[in-house]
Amino acid sequence: MTQVGFQGEPGAFGDTAARRFGEPVPFESFEAVVTAVAAGVVDAGVLPVENTLAGTVQRATDALLASDLRVVGEVVVRVRHVLWARPGARLEDVRRVFSHPVALAQCERFFQQYRGLTPHVAADTAGAVREVLGRGNLDEAAIAGPDAGPRWGAVALAEGIESDPANFTRFLLVSRDGTPMTIPGSPRTGVVFRLRHQPGALALALAAFADEGIDLTRIVSRPIEGRPWSYDFVVDAEGRHDDPGLIRALARLAALTERLRVLGSWSRDPLGGS
Amino acid sequence: MTQVGFQGEPGAFGDTAARRFGEPVPFESFEAVVTAVAAGVVDAGVLPVENTLAGTVQRATDALLASDLRVVGEVVVRVRHVLWARPGARLEDVRRVFSHPVALAQCERFFQQYRGLTPHVAADTAGAVREVLGRGNLDEAAIAGPDAGPRWGAVALAEGIESDPANFTRFLLVSRDGTPMTIPGSPRTGVVFRLRHQPGALALALAAFADEGIDLTRIVSRPIEGRPWSYDFVVDAEGRHDDPGLIRALARLAALTERLRVLGSWSRDPLGGS
Repeated sequence: MTQVGFQGEPGAFGDTAARRFGEPVPFESFEAVVTAVAAGVVDAGVLPVENTLAGTVQRATDALLASDLRVVGEVVVRVRHVLWARPGARLEDVRRVFSHPVALAQCERFFQQYRGLTPHVAADTAGAVREVLGRGNLDEAAIAGPDAGPRWGAVALAEGIESDPANFTRFLLVSRDGTPMTIPGSPRTGVVFRLRHQPGALALALAAFADEGIDLTRIVSRPIEGRPWSYDFVVDAEGRHDDPGLIRALARLAALTERLRVLGSWSRDPLGGS
Repeated sequence: MTQVGFQGEPGAFGDTAARRFGEPVPFESFEAVVTAVAAGVVDAGVLPVENTLAGTVQRATDALLASDLRVVGEVVVRVRHVLWARPGARLEDVRRVFSHPVALAQCERFFQQYRGLTPHVAADTAGAVREVLGRGNLDEAAIAGPDAGPRWGAVALAEGIESDPANFTRFLLVSRDGTPMTIPGSPRTGVVFRLRHQPGALALALAAFADEGIDLTRIVSRPIEGRPWSYDFVVDAEGRHDDPGLIRALARLAALTERLRVLGSWSRDPLGGS
């Protein structure tokens, strides 16, 4: 079975994403996932590059860009938050709630409703469940996804506590070679480029795609280390990298850039929206 | 004296930024800063919108976009990290190091060098110093900026421990009215827009600026709440919002957008690079 690395502890959202492609293998950091895939320790890895509420996941994006890996697939995971505690705990007794800061922020309305609960920062969601269950205090709980509680014997005190239900995370599947995974869906191609310094360079770069009728579904700028206020751009273009129109667009783009790399072509997850 | 709100505890990097414009006033969150400025509780506020290593500070950007405030200035703060501990502590005795996750990540090489230290997540940098000093354990330390230690009587065990010295954060100054603060520097104008759905819309939008010879110094996409995979774009354009060329560009842009808002015009901090 294909082994698929993810960042986090068992039960994390990355675990759910990895399970769609094979057997999940946990790693401590996004960099560790990338390194393990590059070294052949696992066959592939999932990286959460974007969330509908939080936007670009910057460290995961940077880990992808720093690697030579190819993007071969994507999967969209719905983020639902559950308040987990040890058996015997009751919502009215809970005082301290542990989770990753992003998860705590996404449950802001829940904390406004239950004034007796105070949020406490933890390194990650599934790890917070493990720690709370390990300490065994009845006045502590953790916020994590639906898959994070059962493996530690936790009970759900409240479910669907995220403020906005339209909360999805897009994971990209990366591997050493570029063989796309077969998920049905329309194709897209990821490209990262660094523009030469000239006025209107970004407008010219995007016109290269627009003039071929190619829509861009995403554009992200990432700071270049050691060059303050300079950026690499990452775009997702519709189509496969060997479509004639996309080849022409990339040729025009190459003339405008210091660097250009095609991250790969993959099929969009049909759950992933337009 | 002008009162300037910032997010964090006294001694945080926001405190340093606010001090450049007036008397700093601490708030718990970026939203609280924005609310206090809008309500007239303070005269202005600083929001950290961008860091040279981490990129866009998403929550600060979202707080700005959700408000009706005007951008009237900017200041760039160099981020230096110091290891703070209680008097009497020695580097060789420290085991646990507390700080905000971004600060811990920015000191990765320091942790690789001192293998006996384990990073622990705290809600913010200056607050971590306060907590470590409050507990008074000699085997604990906190990572925070140069202004965070002295007010709690902390001593510096190591300075300049960030992995990359080119670490700067750009703060925008916001106020209720649009009177720019007088810092010398070339002018720029912030614009946020939501495009109508059409192929190549972003390329057309950027061409509106490029055709007038107006360079964009930054482009950021932020997810639209409740509309998965849809984005608002924020751009910084060179020039003032009443420059004839920029007026023509904005008129063309308006025809392509559902929404368009000029965030304000301000003078670039000369420290802020090109």
